[in-house]
Amino acid sequence: MNTEHDIRKLMLAMGQSAREAAAILAESTTEQKNAALLAAAKALRTHKDDILAANARDMEIAKGRGLTGAMLDRLLLDNGRIEAMASGLEAIAELPDPVGDVMASWDRPNGLNISRVRVPLGVIGIIYESRPNVTADAGALCLKSGNASILRGGSESAHSSRAIYQCLVKGLEDAGLPEDAIQLIPTQDRSAVGELLGLAGLVDIIVPRGGKSLIERVQNESKVPVMAHLDGICHVYVDKDADLEKAVNIAVNSKMRRTGICGAMETLLIDETAAEKFLPPIAAALREKGCELRGDARCREIIPDMNAASEEDWDTEYLDAILSIRCVDGVEGAIKHIAEHGSHHTDSIVTENAETAAEFLGRVDSAIVMHNASTQFADGGEFGMGAEIGISTGKMHARGPVGLEQLTSYKYQVRGNGQTRP
Amino acid sequence: MNTEHDIRKLMLAMGQSAREAAAILAESTTEQKNAALLAAAKALRTHKDDILAANARDMEIAKGRGLTGAMLDRLLLDNGRIEAMASGLEAIAELPDPVGDVMASWDRPNGLNISRVRVPLGVIGIIYESRPNVTADAGALCLKSGNASILRGGSESAHSSRAIYQCLVKGLEDAGLPEDAIQLIPTQDRSAVGELLGLAGLVDIIVPRGGKSLIERVQNESKVPVMAHLDGICHVYVDKDADLEKAVNIAVNSKMRRTGICGAMETLLIDETAAEKFLPPIAAALREKGCELRGDARCREIIPDMNAASEEDWDTEYLDAILSIRCVDGVEGAIKHIAEHGSHHTDSIVTENAETAAEFLGRVDSAIVMHNASTQFADGGEFGMGAEIGISTGKMHARGPVGLEQLTSYKYQVRGNGQTRP
Repeated sequence: MNTEHDIRKLMLAMGQSAREAAAILAESTTEQKNAALLAAAKALRTHKDDILAANARDMEIAKGRGLTGAMLDRLLLDNGRIEAMASGLEAIAELPDPVGDVMASWDRPNGLNISRVRVPLGVIGIIYESRPNVTADAGALCLKSGNASILRGGSESAHSSRAIYQCLVKGLEDAGLPEDAIQLIPTQDRSAVGELLGLAGLVDIIVPRGGKSLIERVQNESKVPVMAHLDGICHVYVDKDADLEKAVNIAVNSKMRRTGICGAMETLLIDETAAEKFLPPIAAALREKGCELRGDARCREIIPDMNAASEEDWDTEYLDAILSIRCVDGVEGAIKHIAEHGSHHTDSIVTENAETAAEFLGRVDSAIVMHNASTQFADGGEFGMGAEIGISTGKMHARGPVGLEQLTSYKYQVRGNGQTRP
Repeated sequence: MNTEHDIRKLMLAMGQSAREAAAILAESTTEQKNAALLAAAKALRTHKDDILAANARDMEIAKGRGLTGAMLDRLLLDNGRIEAMASGLEAIAELPDPVGDVMASWDRPNGLNISRVRVPLGVIGIIYESRPNVTADAGALCLKSGNASILRGGSESAHSSRAIYQCLVKGLEDAGLPEDAIQLIPTQDRSAVGELLGLAGLVDIIVPRGGKSLIERVQNESKVPVMAHLDGICHVYVDKDADLEKAVNIAVNSKMRRTGICGAMETLLIDETAAEKFLPPIAAALREKGCELRGDARCREIIPDMNAASEEDWDTEYLDAILSIRCVDGVEGAIKHIAEHGSHHTDSIVTENAETAAEFLGRVDSAIVMHNASTQFADGGEFGMGAEIGISTGKMHARGPVGLEQLTSYKYQVRGNGQTRP
C-alpha cells in the first residue's frame, strides 16, 4: 500500500466496485435502504465501546501532535455524540426517498407520454476533515439517495471513522445490500485524494467538507464535478426603513448564535442615512455578547472607539466573534458591496419597505437571499429538507443546501404505442 | 491580435464584459428580451443579401480547401435557411420565459416562507462547427434564458457567422440591452478556445456542438463545467413479446429517418428466442431503404448474406446508413449490452409486455429511455420543450434535451418578520 502505483490501483478498484454497487443501489427498494440505516444505527449503539476506544486512540495521537482545543473538541466522541449519530441515521431513514419520484409527466399531441423521473447520481466521493460523525451522516445520505459513496476522512479521525464505518457496513450486510455501497479509503496517503479526484467516469461528484484549503485543493484538482462552497462571507444589510428591534436581533443572531458556521454574518452593511439611529444599539448589543467590531470611517465617526476595518476585512470570513461594519449608499450600495465582496452564499436585508426588499432579493446573486431573517437559517434542516451534506454556492446542478433531492439526477421515460417520427 | 498574450487579454476582457452584461440581462424583462429577438429576426431579413454575400465568401474558401459535399451543404445558406433562422428567433420569443418562475414555495413552522426561484446561469460559452445558423439559435436561447453568451463558430463559417451575429447585436441595441450580452469571438486563432475553456469564474458553462473530436477536446481541457454528449450510440431492443409491425416501423424509423443525428439508432438488439420471427422482416425493410447490416453469428445464421459485425461495431456511432445487429438473451441481455456499449443517450424497447418494458425503462441508465417509440424522438422540440441547444448525457445539472429551463439555476428567497434562530 505504499507506492503510488499501489494507491492508483486501489482507488481504481474502489471506483469500479462503487460503480457496480451503484447499479444495484439504484434498483434497491426504500425498505432495503431504510433497513440498512436502522441496522447501522443499532450497530453504532451496540459497538459504542469499540468506537469510544478507537476515538481515545485518535485523541491521544492528536494531543501528541499538539492539536488545539477547538480541534480536539471537533474530534471528540462521547456517549451523547454517538447516540446523536445513531438517531441521525434513524432520521434519514424517516425522510422520503427521492428515487423514483415522477417530477413531471405530460402527453404530446402524437400520444407519447413523457415523464421525468428521479434517479441517483451514481457514485459520490466525500472528502472531510476532523469530525468523525461525517462518516455516518455522509454515508447515510448517499445511501438513502441511492448513491454509492467513497469516503475519505481526515487523518486525525482515522480510527474513529473506521470504527463508525464498520457499523455502516454491518447495516448494509444486514439489509442484503452490497458492502461496497459505502467504502472508506483505507489509507491516509495524500495521493489517494488526488487519485479519487481523477476518477472521472467512475465517480460522478465530489463533495468536500472542511476548511478553505481543502475545498480549494479539491476545486482546483478535481476532474470530477465538485459541489461545495469555498467561503461563507454572509452579509446583513440594515436599510433606513428597518425596524430597530428586528435589526438588532437579526444582527446579533446572524453573528453570535454560532460564529464558526458558514451561515454566520461576517459583514454588517448599514444605510448611511440611518447609521446614527441603527449603529449604536446594534454595536452595543454585539459588544455585550463579546464581538469585536471593525468599522469604516463613517462608523468610527459614530462610535470612535471601534477598530478600523481594512480593505481586507471586506473579503474575510472570520468564523469568529469579529464583525466588519460598513456604511453604504442605500440598497444600491449594499447590492454593489455584496457583488464585489460576497461569496454567493447567504445575504439578508432588514427593512419594512417591501419594494426595497424585493430589489435586494431579486438582485443579490446568492444561493440564499433573505428578508427580515437571520443568516443562521441557511441550513437544509431549517429549510425543511431534512439532513444536508453541505451548502453549494455554484449554480450548476444544486444551489444552496444539498440534501437527498440534490444528490439525484433524472431521466426521461417516454411511453408510446408504436410512434415513429415523421 | 496575433500573440498568445493578446488573445489571453481579449478573452479575459470578453469574459468580464459578458459577466457585466449578464447582471443586466438577469434583471431584464421578458418584453425586452423578446423585443431584441424580434428585432434580430427582422434584421436577418433586412440584411439577407449581406448574409448571402458573406456566405458566398465562406463557400468559396471552403471549396478551395476541398471540403466535401455534406460539409458544404451544412455551410450553405440560402433564402429558405435565412428565413428559417429568422422564424426560429420568433419562435424562441414565443416560448415562456423561465426566469423568475417560482419553482416551489413553502412555509416553515417558525413562519419563514421559502421560495425557490429560477435565475439565469450567468455566462454561457458555445463552441460550434460549420453550421452558421447555430450563431442565431444559440445566441437567442441564451438571451431568452437571461444568460450572456460568448460564441465561437467554426473557421469555415467565419464570415457567415459574423454577418448573422451583427443582426443579433442590432436586436440587442434596438431593445436597449447591452451589446455584450451576445459576443462572437473575433479571431479564429485556436488558442482562443483554450482561453475560453479556462475562464472559470467568468464563464459558468460551456456547450460544445459539433463532432466527437471537438467535444472530446472541450471535455478534457475545460476548467468550466461542460454540458454535452460525446456519442449517441442509441439502441432499439426488440423483445420476444414485441408487436411485429411496431418493431419493423420503429427499427426503420429509428435508423433511417435521418441517419446523421445523435438520436439515430446505431445498434439493434433482438431477443434471440424470437430472432427468426423478427429479424427477416426488419432486415428486409431496412435493406429496402438502403441500410447496410452487420450482424453477429446468430443473425448471420438467419440471414447468411449479412456482413459480420466485429467487436468494434458495438461501440461505433456510424451516423450513416449502417446498422449493427445482435441477438441477446432477453431484456437482461439487452440491458447488459447497453450498459457495456451504450452512451447514456437514448434507448428504446419494443414489447407488448408491460412488465418487461418497466424493467427496461427502470434499469437502462440513459438520459432518455423509451417504450414502443422511435429513438428519433430524442429532441427538445419533440418533447414539447421548444428549441434546444443540445442533448446532455451527463447526470449533473441537466440531462437529456437542454432547452431554456435547463439553461437556468435557482436561488432561495426567504421571507421573515424578524425571525432569529434559537
